[in-house]
Amino acid sequence: MNPMPSEVLSTIEVARELKRLRQINPLIHCLTNEVVQEITANVLLASGASPAMVVAQDEVESFASIASAILVNLGTPYESRLNAMRLAVKVANQVGIPWVLDPVAAGVMPWRNTIIQEFVSLKPTVIRGNASEILYLAGVGQGGKGVDSTDSSQVALEPAIQLAQKTGCIVAVTGKVDYITDGKRTLEAHGGHPLITKVVGTGCSLSALIAAFLVKSPDPLISVASCCAFVNKASELATEQSAGPGSFHTHYLDMLYRLTPEDFTL
Amino acid sequence: MNPMPSEVLSTIEVARELKRLRQINPLIHCLTNEVVQEITANVLLASGASPAMVVAQDEVESFASIASAILVNLGTPYESRLNAMRLAVKVANQVGIPWVLDPVAAGVMPWRNTIIQEFVSLKPTVIRGNASEILYLAGVGQGGKGVDSTDSSQVALEPAIQLAQKTGCIVAVTGKVDYITDGKRTLEAHGGHPLITKVVGTGCSLSALIAAFLVKSPDPLISVASCCAFVNKASELATEQSAGPGSFHTHYLDMLYRLTPEDFTL
Amino acid sequence: MNPMPSEVLSTIEVARELKRLRQINPLIHCLTNEVVQEITANVLLASGASPAMVVAQDEVESFASIASAILVNLGTPYESRLNAMRLAVKVANQVGIPWVLDPVAAGVMPWRNTIIQEFVSLKPTVIRGNASEILYLAGVGQGGKGVDSTDSSQVALEPAIQLAQKTGCIVAVTGKVDYITDGKRTLEAHGGHPLITKVVGTGCSLSALIAAFLVKSPDPLISVASCCAFVNKASELATEQSAGPGSFHTHYLDMLYRLTPEDFTL
Repeated sequence: MNPMPSEVLSTIEVARELKRLRQINPLIHCLTNEVVQEITANVLLASGASPAMVVAQDEVESFASIASAILVNLGTPYESRLNAMRLAVKVANQVGIPWVLDPVAAGVMPWRNTIIQEFVSLKPTVIRGNASEILYLAGVGQGGKGVDSTDSSQVALEPAIQLAQKTGCIVAVTGKVDYITDGKRTLEAHGGHPLITKVVGTGCSLSALIAAFLVKSPDPLISVASCCAFVNKASELATEQSAGPGSFHTHYLDMLYRLTPEDFTL
Repeated sequence: MNPMPSEVLSTIEVARELKRLRQINPLIHCLTNEVVQEITANVLLASGASPAMVVAQDEVESFASIASAILVNLGTPYESRLNAMRLAVKVANQVGIPWVLDPVAAGVMPWRNTIIQEFVSLKPTVIRGNASEILYLAGVGQGGKGVDSTDSSQVALEPAIQLAQKTGCIVAVTGKVDYITDGKRTLEAHGGHPLITKVVGTGCSLSALIAAFLVKSPDPLISVASCCAFVNKASELATEQSAGPGSFHTHYLDMLYRLTPEDFTL
Repeated sequence: MNPMPSEVLSTIEVARELKRLRQINPLIHCLTNEVVQEITANVLLASGASPAMVVAQDEVESFASIASAILVNLGTPYESRLNAMRLAVKVANQVGIPWVLDPVAAGVMPWRNTIIQEFVSLKPTVIRGNASEILYLAGVGQGGKGVDSTDSSQVALEPAIQLAQKTGCIVAVTGKVDYITDGKRTLEAHGGHPLITKVVGTGCSLSALIAAFLVKSPDPLISVASCCAFVNKASELATEQSAGPGSFHTHYLDMLYRLTPEDFTL
């Protein structure tokens, strides 16, 4: 028996968090992979944040120190970019702004695993992954097939709680149901539609948007879960209008832009 | 007189090949250019394959050894990426998985020409290019204006056959008509619409999708031609619904996702 | 009192310039940032130019010498790319083709500021920026918040004129109204819609398109202003059909493709 059953997030929280995001319009410093930079920027812009991809080691600290939050996504890591990420994370930890780690393809390749473990040890505010990635980080699974999850999110629930307890990070496992846990309390975000998995970068850009929701958050666990619920709602509404992944991409950005706090409370 | 007239591919073959792709859901390791990574991933996802862009020299061999097929696209080559490509190709040739070479802008610049010739000599399963590129590789043409073809595909038919005979690769020349040849037999794929040339990365992502169709193929020549016929059909249907290249991009991804094997046999 | 009032550009000029662009179909060598390469290529293709992103130091001079014009965008600078940009600019200045500088986030970070000043000193044909960027370059403002402008374009009008006089470049400040000045004469381009600011790369791709309009221009000031008026019209028409930034992106590319010279004179 689970001593700590997970709770479904209230839509009132989602509304309040979305309102807060739009009022702050935070500046998110994205250190992400080569493939998803455009969609990541567009998801942030549509939702009510400002993206900036500053990557040179010569200026990454300078920019991190004026950013509201930082995203580190390890989808296409290589040395020069990793060094920039290390510098940015150091600034984030020094000045006390939140940062999110997206451990893409954790468990699949040894060199990457070492890097991911290094960044986990740098104490991200949030680790956001699919079930395969979280299972690997919790020491349970074998890692996924490339970047896609091969496990359902529920199997990663207990491992996610353990990972949160071990690291002190909030852990978000996204999938059919999203579980967001700090090791003591666990929230669920429902909804969404699997068509979103047919568009590259939707998971990666969710991690960036989580960084945005974390800015000046009075309750980070609720902020992360609200972000997941927000994108799930946008995903559902986009799917209703879509004939496939091309039109989904278009409608998804439209819905992130159009959804208001009131859409969650009415 | 052509001693070996080219044949129009049967739609029954296209249906069978598409069905095979969807059943396998192959994992395609894409080493491609900076500009087209997102559309390449989205074309693979929409069609029924899984993309992964692993590029660091530290892990490229590790990933190539679990991939189903590899794409090497030389659109924006530079030394570190070329070294990663060399490592991936070495693995592909050792373990015997197919790999596709997209010789972007072959013939236009001397440094690139040397690199392209190096990769041709590494024996790709398929070389996919436009007429200008294939004419150059066959030792006939001067190369195109940048990345666009300046020759119609038919002028490259005989040179493509010669190139296939010389290299032992399957050569696919795409254009108004697509010609796919192994030097002994030549197939034609018809259809498509020129609006596709107004969207960047449609040719590059076709090369990635060819890699996907090659996975576990019982007859690679038919697999490559079927892939061309599949995208031509998607392109035609997308064009019918489109007001320009923006909406074409959207509908093209939708059609790659929606087309079923039955759409080719009914 | 302004001794040199700015003039609204005639739509007859826009029509003539667009017609000229479509006849030339210029080849634009884009050295731009990591985030916007795809939209930059697609904006050029849709409008009637050919993009090419050749970035390796080994071949950048070779390609610059056959290009019609060059774009240098400093959104994600790092050393190897900067060296490629320096080589390309040197060729442009030697052979006398136009080049456009997009000084992304000028004023925000010291290392970048030094680089931007270096490129300004290399005498671009045009500097295209938002108000914050131009204020900084003119020695007036503090720079913007990341890549977004935090000043309206009108406050940058006098500084833009001074910057043009000091550097000998045409300066284009884009915003609610676009001001294009060579220090002696100033043109205004009206229209557009703020929804365009919710799509990443629309400013960056405008700079690329300005390079295209400059090719073989009999009057560069009019060419630059015409380019701004052209995208403003496309932006307005796209907005009318759009439910948000996702559909705007789609319709914007469609409108760049569909707009004809006659649409500006009727």
